[in-house]
Amino acid sequence: MLTAASTGFSLSRQQQVLAALLAVLPARCVLSATEDTRPYECDGLAAYRQLPMIVTLPDTEQQVLAILQVCRELQVPVVPRGAGTGLSGGALPIADGVVLSTARLNRIVRVDAYARLAVVQPGVRNLAISEAAAPHALYYAPDPSSQIACTIGGNVAENSGGVHCLKYGLTVHNVLRVRVATIDGDIIELGGEALDAPGLDLLAVFIGSEGMLGIVTEVTVRLIPKPATARVIMASFDDVVTGGNAVANVIAAGIIPAGLEMMDQTSSRMVEPFVKAGYDIDAAAILLCEADGTHAEVAEEIARMTSVLEGAGASAIAVSNTEAERMRFWSGRKNAFPAAGRISPDYYCMDGTIPRKKLAEVLTGIARMEQTHGLRCANVFHAGDGNLHPLILFDANVPGEFERAEAFGADILALCVAVGGTITGEHGVGMEKINSMCVQFARAELEAFFAVKRAFDPHGLLNPDKAIPTLHRCAEFGKMHVSGGRLPFAGLPRF
Amino acid sequence: MLTAASTGFSLSRQQQVLAALLAVLPARCVLSATEDTRPYECDGLAAYRQLPMIVTLPDTEQQVLAILQVCRELQVPVVPRGAGTGLSGGALPIADGVVLSTARLNRIVRVDAYARLAVVQPGVRNLAISEAAAPHALYYAPDPSSQIACTIGGNVAENSGGVHCLKYGLTVHNVLRVRVATIDGDIIELGGEALDAPGLDLLAVFIGSEGMLGIVTEVTVRLIPKPATARVIMASFDDVVTGGNAVANVIAAGIIPAGLEMMDQTSSRMVEPFVKAGYDIDAAAILLCEADGTHAEVAEEIARMTSVLEGAGASAIAVSNTEAERMRFWSGRKNAFPAAGRISPDYYCMDGTIPRKKLAEVLTGIARMEQTHGLRCANVFHAGDGNLHPLILFDANVPGEFERAEAFGADILALCVAVGGTITGEHGVGMEKINSMCVQFARAELEAFFAVKRAFDPHGLLNPDKAIPTLHRCAEFGKMHVSGGRLPFAGLPRF
Repeated sequence: MLTAASTGFSLSRQQQVLAALLAVLPARCVLSATEDTRPYECDGLAAYRQLPMIVTLPDTEQQVLAILQVCRELQVPVVPRGAGTGLSGGALPIADGVVLSTARLNRIVRVDAYARLAVVQPGVRNLAISEAAAPHALYYAPDPSSQIACTIGGNVAENSGGVHCLKYGLTVHNVLRVRVATIDGDIIELGGEALDAPGLDLLAVFIGSEGMLGIVTEVTVRLIPKPATARVIMASFDDVVTGGNAVANVIAAGIIPAGLEMMDQTSSRMVEPFVKAGYDIDAAAILLCEADGTHAEVAEEIARMTSVLEGAGASAIAVSNTEAERMRFWSGRKNAFPAAGRISPDYYCMDGTIPRKKLAEVLTGIARMEQTHGLRCANVFHAGDGNLHPLILFDANVPGEFERAEAFGADILALCVAVGGTITGEHGVGMEKINSMCVQFARAELEAFFAVKRAFDPHGLLNPDKAIPTLHRCAEFGKMHVSGGRLPFAGLPRF
Repeated sequence: MLTAASTGFSLSRQQQVLAALLAVLPARCVLSATEDTRPYECDGLAAYRQLPMIVTLPDTEQQVLAILQVCRELQVPVVPRGAGTGLSGGALPIADGVVLSTARLNRIVRVDAYARLAVVQPGVRNLAISEAAAPHALYYAPDPSSQIACTIGGNVAENSGGVHCLKYGLTVHNVLRVRVATIDGDIIELGGEALDAPGLDLLAVFIGSEGMLGIVTEVTVRLIPKPATARVIMASFDDVVTGGNAVANVIAAGIIPAGLEMMDQTSSRMVEPFVKAGYDIDAAAILLCEADGTHAEVAEEIARMTSVLEGAGASAIAVSNTEAERMRFWSGRKNAFPAAGRISPDYYCMDGTIPRKKLAEVLTGIARMEQTHGLRCANVFHAGDGNLHPLILFDANVPGEFERAEAFGADILALCVAVGGTITGEHGVGMEKINSMCVQFARAELEAFFAVKRAFDPHGLLNPDKAIPTLHRCAEFGKMHVSGGRLPFAGLPRF
């Protein structure tokens, strides 16, 4: 049997699967030449790359079912892929697997302004939903930084968040229904327009399941009215600890800002020359706090937030007076990742979540780790919901720096878990954080995840080896979460 | 083998299970005499009764695990029970089964005002959580009518709602974490304090799972700040259709009231002599619309709602000016069920959810069904979220009336499904609506539910035959949901 060393799959196996796929799909829906499959070898986590055996691009739900049937019959792993903007390697191909891209399932089925919902195919871009809803003064709230490019199918797979999720929730809070093609060849609909649905709440399980349970073929999202107005406060702080405490104070005052973001000095100095957002680059940290709603609500909330921030020790406060000014304040935050790319050859964007009261402690811990690992780290994050995005700056061409960045990242996540947080806020586990899952969860919890995975995918063909580590893997990694009251990892791995 | 005809279980089997339970539990935690188990023979759906073989009342999580171990080893069905206030028969005992009551797991573990959460055992009453949080000006939002008696464990099992769920969400939106004893003998923790958690979102699956997946031993709930003020509008309408359309108009105007309830004339006339809430009993329907928040927010929202209601054709509008008046306006709504008990020997409370725009159509349909079934029906409901609670009035002592009430109820649920709604809003499926599940779901969806059920309960011991009908049952019932694009029920039932 011929094996293509450069690709990792057997050519005869590729021919077999290709023939089966071409029997049920038009040729334009199947890519197998290396030059065609190359663009699919990684997602936004470009440090990990793997050429897939075959890429499929179905046009219809029936074609999705046909692809799944071929893969089930020939026992071929399937890696679903949205726009490929994911940051945790969830769409990283498998050497002997098929990538199923939802790019061509890109139709907006309908916008129902009265019921305040939109029905869209998975390949519709996040921002395109809000554009389609705009004539009705409605929009789709979750706004990942990649919203111009990322698609709703990928958002569902990763339970994506964004700047406004503190007030408006993550993808799971804004999706009403999904239609799913299962590996068994069924179409199921989960969720509905009502607040509650009978039966088990499998909608929530699908959202954030990283392609492990089925292929989403249609998504019904909730639309919400565009607020009449919005204003944002930019507050400066002389040290990071005071800034972190100010965040906790805003929330403790009973305010739920439309956005509550923090950037440390490394970040603001990285962004300002590039974006000219007007950031206070002498401040150790700046906070951006947005209020939205009616004019009266916004005026009242801006006044209350200003008072809390002043009381918490802000050294300067500016409030946007026009929509243009508001957009300018946000432009720096939204461009933090590209700015990191300008000052550093490579960066590694982390995504951990911690209790808000631990913000100051974790920021201090990350500063210490910069010394230990000999790398700089810019901190940009959704402070209001405790979701950190440390950007570890490194140069992959310097021997050892990539490995140090990985170790730095794992240490940050372990610190998040140690203070009572989690290893992901909105980017998912994917390939990147699979070992950290062993730190986060106990044996029985991982077993529960696998039991549900098996319920939908008995042969383990859907995005295998992503998102949930096997107990065997955790044993090899040498770590397993043990804490008071939880049962320790005991006996042989079952998986 | 001796069989007790009056109970439905074998006495020797009872002795066997009893001996095994007494070997691991103190005697005070186990009830087996008929006079002791009699109070557990039904829940709030008193039309269905069954004496259990044994009742257990564990004091600790370890005892919960011990009970589950005995039941697993002897293959005894387990029916979990909270306060027994459920309205769908979810806690109806099984003849040869053990009832596991969480009544003694009633400790408030801690209230963390800073993190805005409370950690409580499942037997803590819903209202007791808000009482414990009150010194911190916080409260727990979901407020079922039974909140003085019902417990958080039962709320989790049924995903309970309440008057304020339109704005603040159901139980699933207000629980951060559950700790669960599994039938396999593990303790797992699902969810967390962060907005998102890695791994599959099994927290949502447990909430509303009606005791089919495991026994909740600890619940972490979100607390929210008590609003500074609240006011409620009472609006009268000359006909039900106009009232129903007014509800849709309020929501379409972009307002999310803290409560939006509707009562028809049958209900207000039923309640008013009993409660003296000041209801307009000449109106065909009244709406109660509440605004809460800061004084400015409430003033603005009351003005906007008044304007929408007037525009929608309200014949009279009153607004509460004091907290006492607000409580009085609500007292009628909150006492609708007891009031039904005063004017009718029996009543059957339905719980279906429909798209708001179908309110008028469904109310007209129910009025027609009153003629067909020869029974009266009072309509009281969470209009804002389309959650109907028709109260079918009947007398069980009149031959045939119970059966007519059941048929009336099934017709209402079928109408809910036909207009795009669901068969339950917040009361669960339990025993009561299990046949209606065959109308609601397609084969593949029921199979998905069972697959997840089996993942947690491979031997089917946890509250079997509740909440999800077997395909066999649906085949016997003679109905199975079939709709455009869904796959029809084909082949033999697998379960």
